[in-house]
Amino acid sequence: MIFSSDNWAGAHPLIAESLVKAAPGFAPAYGTSPLDRRVEAMLAEVFEREVAVFFVGTGTAANSLAFASVTRPGGHVFCHREAHVNADECGAPEFFSLGARMAPVDGAFGKMDPERLEAEIKRFPPGFVHAGQPMAVTLTQATEAGTVYTLDEISAISDIAKRYNLPLHMDGARFANALVALDATPAEMTWKRGVDILSFGGTKNGCWCAEALILFDPAKTGDMPYLRKRSAQLFSKTRFVSAQLEAYLDKDLWLDLARHANAMAKRLADGISDSNSARLAWPSNANELFVILKTANAEALKEKGALFYDWPVPHALAGTLAADEGLYRLVTSFATEPADVDAFLEGCRSA
Amino acid sequence: MIFSSDNWAGAHPLIAESLVKAAPGFAPAYGTSPLDRRVEAMLAEVFEREVAVFFVGTGTAANSLAFASVTRPGGHVFCHREAHVNADECGAPEFFSLGARMAPVDGAFGKMDPERLEAEIKRFPPGFVHAGQPMAVTLTQATEAGTVYTLDEISAISDIAKRYNLPLHMDGARFANALVALDATPAEMTWKRGVDILSFGGTKNGCWCAEALILFDPAKTGDMPYLRKRSAQLFSKTRFVSAQLEAYLDKDLWLDLARHANAMAKRLADGISDSNSARLAWPSNANELFVILKTANAEALKEKGALFYDWPVPHALAGTLAADEGLYRLVTSFATEPADVDAFLEGCRSA
Amino acid sequence: MIFSSDNWAGAHPLIAESLVKAAPGFAPAYGTSPLDRRVEAMLAEVFEREVAVFFVGTGTAANSLAFASVTRPGGHVFCHREAHVNADECGAPEFFSLGARMAPVDGAFGKMDPERLEAEIKRFPPGFVHAGQPMAVTLTQATEAGTVYTLDEISAISDIAKRYNLPLHMDGARFANALVALDATPAEMTWKRGVDILSFGGTKNGCWCAEALILFDPAKTGDMPYLRKRSAQLFSKTRFVSAQLEAYLDKDLWLDLARHANAMAKRLADGISDSNSARLAWPSNANELFVILKTANAEALKEKGALFYDWPVPHALAGTLAADEGLYRLVTSFATEPADVDAFLEGCRSA
Amino acid sequence: MIFSSDNWAGAHPLIAESLVKAAPGFAPAYGTSPLDRRVEAMLAEVFEREVAVFFVGTGTAANSLAFASVTRPGGHVFCHREAHVNADECGAPEFFSLGARMAPVDGAFGKMDPERLEAEIKRFPPGFVHAGQPMAVTLTQATEAGTVYTLDEISAISDIAKRYNLPLHMDGARFANALVALDATPAEMTWKRGVDILSFGGTKNGCWCAEALILFDPAKTGDMPYLRKRSAQLFSKTRFVSAQLEAYLDKDLWLDLARHANAMAKRLADGISDSNSARLAWPSNANELFVILKTANAEALKEKGALFYDWPVPHALAGTLAADEGLYRLVTSFATEPADVDAFLEGCRSA
Repeated sequence: MIFSSDNWAGAHPLIAESLVKAAPGFAPAYGTSPLDRRVEAMLAEVFEREVAVFFVGTGTAANSLAFASVTRPGGHVFCHREAHVNADECGAPEFFSLGARMAPVDGAFGKMDPERLEAEIKRFPPGFVHAGQPMAVTLTQATEAGTVYTLDEISAISDIAKRYNLPLHMDGARFANALVALDATPAEMTWKRGVDILSFGGTKNGCWCAEALILFDPAKTGDMPYLRKRSAQLFSKTRFVSAQLEAYLDKDLWLDLARHANAMAKRLADGISDSNSARLAWPSNANELFVILKTANAEALKEKGALFYDWPVPHALAGTLAADEGLYRLVTSFATEPADVDAFLEGCRSA
Repeated sequence: MIFSSDNWAGAHPLIAESLVKAAPGFAPAYGTSPLDRRVEAMLAEVFEREVAVFFVGTGTAANSLAFASVTRPGGHVFCHREAHVNADECGAPEFFSLGARMAPVDGAFGKMDPERLEAEIKRFPPGFVHAGQPMAVTLTQATEAGTVYTLDEISAISDIAKRYNLPLHMDGARFANALVALDATPAEMTWKRGVDILSFGGTKNGCWCAEALILFDPAKTGDMPYLRKRSAQLFSKTRFVSAQLEAYLDKDLWLDLARHANAMAKRLADGISDSNSARLAWPSNANELFVILKTANAEALKEKGALFYDWPVPHALAGTLAADEGLYRLVTSFATEPADVDAFLEGCRSA
Repeated sequence: MIFSSDNWAGAHPLIAESLVKAAPGFAPAYGTSPLDRRVEAMLAEVFEREVAVFFVGTGTAANSLAFASVTRPGGHVFCHREAHVNADECGAPEFFSLGARMAPVDGAFGKMDPERLEAEIKRFPPGFVHAGQPMAVTLTQATEAGTVYTLDEISAISDIAKRYNLPLHMDGARFANALVALDATPAEMTWKRGVDILSFGGTKNGCWCAEALILFDPAKTGDMPYLRKRSAQLFSKTRFVSAQLEAYLDKDLWLDLARHANAMAKRLADGISDSNSARLAWPSNANELFVILKTANAEALKEKGALFYDWPVPHALAGTLAADEGLYRLVTSFATEPADVDAFLEGCRSA
Repeated sequence: MIFSSDNWAGAHPLIAESLVKAAPGFAPAYGTSPLDRRVEAMLAEVFEREVAVFFVGTGTAANSLAFASVTRPGGHVFCHREAHVNADECGAPEFFSLGARMAPVDGAFGKMDPERLEAEIKRFPPGFVHAGQPMAVTLTQATEAGTVYTLDEISAISDIAKRYNLPLHMDGARFANALVALDATPAEMTWKRGVDILSFGGTKNGCWCAEALILFDPAKTGDMPYLRKRSAQLFSKTRFVSAQLEAYLDKDLWLDLARHANAMAKRLADGISDSNSARLAWPSNANELFVILKTANAEALKEKGALFYDWPVPHALAGTLAADEGLYRLVTSFATEPADVDAFLEGCRSA
């Protein structure tokens, strides 16, 4: 009954196996091996176009390098208030982009409200140096609230970014979970809807450590190779990343893993909706659930071995919880077993 | 006949296997899993004292974070002119330490000359703001020239650092190769000789990606957890590093691998010394050799499939090479086979 | 009728004269001249204790260096949402403090609400690296809304800062205006109420360019001399700042100038309160007024030559303005003439 | 007998007077006043072309912003080893350019040797991320050694910069002294010889605090307004700089002041050349002299009230001084009196 986070799961057996297979023999270092090239080609195929690919170590690195590549003095990156870049990256985006500011935009259930986004951008009239200047827009797909922007919602954000000449970045730490939720193609969910730069995450979905920064316009690569090296994110034995991604992308393993995680979340959501003792705080689209439980109930579940986090109640929900209730986050992963879901639901009911 | 670099080798089978073993199951993320703790304990045992351990993704990250943790405005880090931090890290040390300068010190065969080190430090009188201020001393062990500081040479550097109240950092990208070359203990080669912070490298010696920053005085950990997170070097599934290091340290695998690499370098060196057609540019102590060959000879070897890099002739050797000679670097690793060495030597003789 | 900003005024004649007097002759450079020392002593007397004084070029520099001196990775500086450091310094605080984040705190009329301040600080549990960490608290005195924290209100903020071990900075761009408004001593309004670092502004109150960073605990000066030099704020001919401040502080000229500016603001406020065609948006304590006018009225005044800025309506006032009304900011200075005030009021009435 | 530095002199009376004249009245702030515009027009006339002008507070700020505007990750700025940016700015260039490295180039008497410059640039093959990348070339005119690049020498440097597509910056802290030494026009000494960006210094030559960054291609202004604001170098009452420069440029006052300073240096040089007890270390072209004196002689002069600095002996002179000799720097300024020069020479002879 471990629902703490999808990064509490380890690596999928096929990915571990791929690392074993890639271990022997010599290969050029620093991203120039044949395997590196092969995985880049696989990603081009996945996205149906030529892309520039930069392997990095963490999602935070991918996000922060994206901003570093478009940094401007006094720059503002517009993001949802609860976005990972704003709430959970300890100033990395500011550090990499040398002082750019994460500018929070509100919106229900983890998604930026397009009108509010535009209102925020408008607060920075061109040439008024005191306030600084807009620099980029970033959205998280799936969001930190477990929701997923629809394709049209992505377009709405993208249209505004384009109107103000701002590059659009997508934090895809849970890219695969969003993709299978929408039943869209990778191209449809990104560049066809105006996304310029993608943090493509593999770690949360069954890899050990496999993140890539993907630029949909390779002509804009610019100094990215130097930016990555300067930020100490250029691995010497890059094939250890490529080997993971080769297995990850092969025969759509990545989509299968995400479908499994989402299905486990749905099984959990359905059980909770049927229950008298718990309810969803808002609808879940991917592999994260936000659940309202009696606090006593939650404690009882924890005592039975369930692991999940207490979560701060967002403004939008203020006043809707009873005094004896709390908000909790549950995350499923490729490794979540139906039996664990059922045990949790059973515990829920009996509590 | 691949002698390009030790990072062209992959991962040792025991290390790949350890990753397979660690793959299933759930574990706390971000460096808090039982396996993370176990490896930290193994490192404490290796170094015969309590240490603070920070896993990071690259040697450049370890070095740069070391400087970031002791940064001062207008700071100078004294290093050998050919040190990796000065010559090969694309400004990462400056970036992480927010503008500190790598201050090159000369010295024969990759080792800083203690007198020159002190002369350089003395150029910064306390309180003279225009020149900036000393901030740290760093030495590379084994050096970029394939040599190894003796314990007394480390003490000579350390004494100067202490005299000026400067922390002493050791870049141990090839720590194991130096250690077995000296037949010293890890403690003897570090804190017992005054080293304060160590970049402990496992990648070049048989891991996929396993680097650790080690602080010998855990009380001085300070903001390091935040510094690491801010630089996007905190992996979520840290057990993928721990699992590598567990196998690496277990039953002294790491020392065996380094002994093998050094032995291969010695076999190569011996063969070259016996040869009429090649000579060592200077003595090698670890797993890197710098060899003077006729350029035609080098080309012939390359045509036969030997891989190794041309190397710029350092000032100290200027004028000692004939017009038809060149300087070349050869690196051996845990994966180098005697047969490859012998093939190279054979090619050398017949060229 | 120029009420655009107090920095539209030039320099007071006594200050210009002091520069003429200081022009001839040689003096040590970089802050070491006898005149520099004399002004430092004057400031020590003004503040009734030993202080460390650093002349800089702009208020932004003083604020940013204050944060730079206490910077922490992933650091948050808690400030009012409308504070100059958050709204008007184009990322300088982030740049100088190498990525620290300005963390906005709400509160009526430009003053941080102590409860909200504490709630914001509490969002950063010690050791939770993902969120970053608290680093400092800063308050603006007088505020950007023209109000002034009372001594007890300063204590309330200070108590919280102390409780969380955070240094307290005061942005005193309009220090003198606040001081005479409270009829307090400089010591009472700063260190006696827990302020650790002060940006002491002279420019807005009759100097050309005279700003000083003042540390109330000189033992904590640390690397400030290097920080100032590194940020290119160490003037060579520092006596051009000292000469201004000597005249500024001499015989309490600075307090007289601030009293005049505040009196002009009061004259304006009184006239507006008596008027049928205008009203104050909120009470003014110093030399800035926020006035609600019919937009037609405002246009008519502008046509008659009045200069003042349109101002965005803050959340707290939303819905309280009629459709044909706007919010406007008026600032008085040492150079504002009663006749200008009266002309404005006359224009107001007749519009 | 004050020869410590030209920044020990105060301000020329006409400049102080201009500040008095500009003191009354209101004017738009932040660089938009009519006087600001007028001085920009004067500078356009001085340089015979449209230029973009940015007033800043210090020469270090001008230099550092120049580099900030062309910064690249892992960037190297090639400069003379003894250049002010390398030796005397406490890491400001690194800080502003976010970690770019000052890459020292050798050359006799303060001037970069063009061949060595090219050799240094060539050490950075395009695309080799580990070493970083070239970013700019900067030369100091007059140099820190008191010499002046001839127009052809500037072209030689410029040709190399252009060949490698690098912007060329000139640190003109003593621009006027160099200009009158060459009897060239400002255009001839800058953009006509390939200089792209100029730090135009007025402070050392009779202003209080008047420095400007001048871009010869205004189309490349880019983010400079934001860069200046972010670095806290945008003064509010900019007319205090403009007023200085108006008087400075009016009727060629600046050239007269520089001619005087240079003439005083020549008087000093001639006297020393005629003397038996002192000699010039190398020829002086502007207003700085480097003199070899017996140390006892220097001490005697100091006791008589002469002020000048001991100077480290550069490598090029090593071994040419007798054991009882030292190297000393003497700087003249607009305020140096012939009587002071003669007193020094008299002291020299009698010592």
